[in-house]
Amino acid sequence: MIRRLNSNDPGFERALADLLAFETISDRLVAERVDTILQSVKADGDAALLKYSAEFDRLEVERVADLEVSKAELAAAHDRIEPAAREALTLAAARVRRYHEHQLAQSWSYTEADGTLLGQQVTAMERVGVYVPGGKASYPSSVLMNTIPAKVAGVDDVVMVVPAPGGELNPLVLAAAHIAGVDRVFKLGGAQAVAALAFGTETLPKVDKIVGPGNIYVATAKRAVFGTVAIDMIAGPSEILVVCDGKTDPDWLAMDLFSQAEHDELAQAIFIGWDAAFIDQVQAAMARLLPTLERAAIAGTALADRGALIQVRDQAEAIDLINRIAPEHLELSVEDPQAWLPSIRHAGAIFMGRHTAEALGDYCAGPNHVLPTSGTARFSSPLGVYDFQKRSSLIMCSPAGASSLGKCASVLARGESLEAHARSAEYRIRED
Amino acid sequence: MIRRLNSNDPGFERALADLLAFETISDRLVAERVDTILQSVKADGDAALLKYSAEFDRLEVERVADLEVSKAELAAAHDRIEPAAREALTLAAARVRRYHEHQLAQSWSYTEADGTLLGQQVTAMERVGVYVPGGKASYPSSVLMNTIPAKVAGVDDVVMVVPAPGGELNPLVLAAAHIAGVDRVFKLGGAQAVAALAFGTETLPKVDKIVGPGNIYVATAKRAVFGTVAIDMIAGPSEILVVCDGKTDPDWLAMDLFSQAEHDELAQAIFIGWDAAFIDQVQAAMARLLPTLERAAIAGTALADRGALIQVRDQAEAIDLINRIAPEHLELSVEDPQAWLPSIRHAGAIFMGRHTAEALGDYCAGPNHVLPTSGTARFSSPLGVYDFQKRSSLIMCSPAGASSLGKCASVLARGESLEAHARSAEYRIRED
Repeated sequence: MIRRLNSNDPGFERALADLLAFETISDRLVAERVDTILQSVKADGDAALLKYSAEFDRLEVERVADLEVSKAELAAAHDRIEPAAREALTLAAARVRRYHEHQLAQSWSYTEADGTLLGQQVTAMERVGVYVPGGKASYPSSVLMNTIPAKVAGVDDVVMVVPAPGGELNPLVLAAAHIAGVDRVFKLGGAQAVAALAFGTETLPKVDKIVGPGNIYVATAKRAVFGTVAIDMIAGPSEILVVCDGKTDPDWLAMDLFSQAEHDELAQAIFIGWDAAFIDQVQAAMARLLPTLERAAIAGTALADRGALIQVRDQAEAIDLINRIAPEHLELSVEDPQAWLPSIRHAGAIFMGRHTAEALGDYCAGPNHVLPTSGTARFSSPLGVYDFQKRSSLIMCSPAGASSLGKCASVLARGESLEAHARSAEYRIRED
Repeated sequence: MIRRLNSNDPGFERALADLLAFETISDRLVAERVDTILQSVKADGDAALLKYSAEFDRLEVERVADLEVSKAELAAAHDRIEPAAREALTLAAARVRRYHEHQLAQSWSYTEADGTLLGQQVTAMERVGVYVPGGKASYPSSVLMNTIPAKVAGVDDVVMVVPAPGGELNPLVLAAAHIAGVDRVFKLGGAQAVAALAFGTETLPKVDKIVGPGNIYVATAKRAVFGTVAIDMIAGPSEILVVCDGKTDPDWLAMDLFSQAEHDELAQAIFIGWDAAFIDQVQAAMARLLPTLERAAIAGTALADRGALIQVRDQAEAIDLINRIAPEHLELSVEDPQAWLPSIRHAGAIFMGRHTAEALGDYCAGPNHVLPTSGTARFSSPLGVYDFQKRSSLIMCSPAGASSLGKCASVLARGESLEAHARSAEYRIRED
């Protein structure tokens, strides 16, 4: 069911490259369809949204305003769901909020000896769109994780769009929107929802940034509107890399690997250890437990297609491999995980110690579950408050500062043949 | 030459919208050509680079290694340029470095009452590509501004590409690369240079992020490789918004406006004031000084096509307009600019006071000159150290923490029908 690799085998490098290969799908036909939808919404606004909602979501309404879910409906969903779910969502939201408050950047400045002030002013974006997938992948945790950082940053308006095929919505998603403080919700999905948020329509307000996962149409639309608005990273399939020193219950590790593999057939679960006998135990636990899973078919396919148990020589080689893989989720199921940290350069989230199941991070530990996938942890970060704040440089020159800097700027501007730049600086030079 | 607008006029809203309208050019023919180049470099590596360099840059070499500019050549250029230029570049680099050191983010963590540790580890990207345009827009200041934040962040390797048509390079650009600490330089440009950095070839190493301005081919290529690597914002034409209370020398203000307008015909220079007589003086100064500029033709076209002198009712309306325009460069040529700051929500860089010419920020004040254009200051920031750092979430649950969080995660995971997630969390629940 799951392949075994050994870093000592001659074919290991090739096998590893094959294992990690994942191409973002970029389909020309999809791109053309999305382009048509984007242009149509940009040109026709609400009318285009009504047409696409009827066509794709079987939702026939007279006005786009009829697609809005009122705050009262959100509150009603919150009151109606199971008390245990309501309590869990409330606890998770509070923990996510507390963690993200640590990420708030502050304005700063310093004054130089001649009185010149330099710094940065940090402000929040005004309005953000959150895309929430509909149907089976409609996750209330995703509403919390995408909305709370924006509200902590100080974003005035969070506008959520969620497709409602036939009008159906997940009450847990609406309850999560209520708890997270979403400002407006529209029953809209697909590329048309992205277009509405990016360009604005008569009814939907234009936003500054669009975040949240979606299918290939949504991802393609987000890439196309990048620049008109900001977007988050284009997400690939979820992955986990579990590293163990051989002293964690193999059943626990097997279930941690399954918790990624059950997401979808493209999800990736990799285990790394340096003790062959222990890897045998993990493999045996996986074989025994897999059939007991509700989503055994999905997890089994994911493990067979993209999973691996990798035997390395030692801890040093494990660390080298971690940094090459740059995993979305890294579980360090080892004795002293903190000792590993200085060596770990690329990972989305690091789950440390035998008790820290990755699933805790998906829901309620506090950190964000929107994480860089497919090796993009080399250059990107978990979604955070910093994604909804921005900075303005501050420069206030004293007369003395303007004079001395003006001399430097004049030389450089003339070196670039930008004479007006030079003369503008030279006006402020004082003859001493 | 430059239009006058008055916020009291009935047609003002329409005129303002026309003034600010700027569509990012997205040309299907260019996109197809770029796609061909990207695929070719991805498939054929060095061989494709040699072919395109011969075709586009008239550079016939045998190996891509022959396109590399050695560290000795950079040092030689540094020694050869005019002493005044060398001193100015060195001073500018030192000031840019000092300013950017204030942006370094630090790792953080906190421990909860039950012993659970949460935090973020901040690390630098490993390798970054800097695109430097060739020809007339080959600016040494751009080398400093794109490279220094990366080196301050702790990036190991900065790889610079710069087109060298016929083999010619600007010695000031090479000297700036030496001063900024660029690690490797290749004479490569266009979409093929972007492709080489994004995918790697036999000779060029794959990078994690590509920054730097370029023409439409470069911008289109960057958009296409977004996701494979990180990129900075797609830059539009440069703009300045000057606001004055009527007490700054009109000649200074005219030259500040020209210092944007001289960049290119699409650059935008806007003045806002609430004193009609003073606006007359600024307009008269512009009319008198424009013909004295070396780049009068370019500046004149830019001012006629995209410039404006706007009369508003008062300071409050000026602030409202600033936030609607979200300018790249904002010059507050007023008595107490710091009093304005809390009201300014969207601006790339804020130049405060009568002595702070925008040109100082282009070269040597310290802040970055790579700034969000075309209103994207609503959602993006100056290039900074934060563009080259990334974060990993840290989660280390105590046994008690794993137990209590496990109960919450279990409820939420089962609500999302993710059973393996739930069971993975449940393994760590202790029966008290």
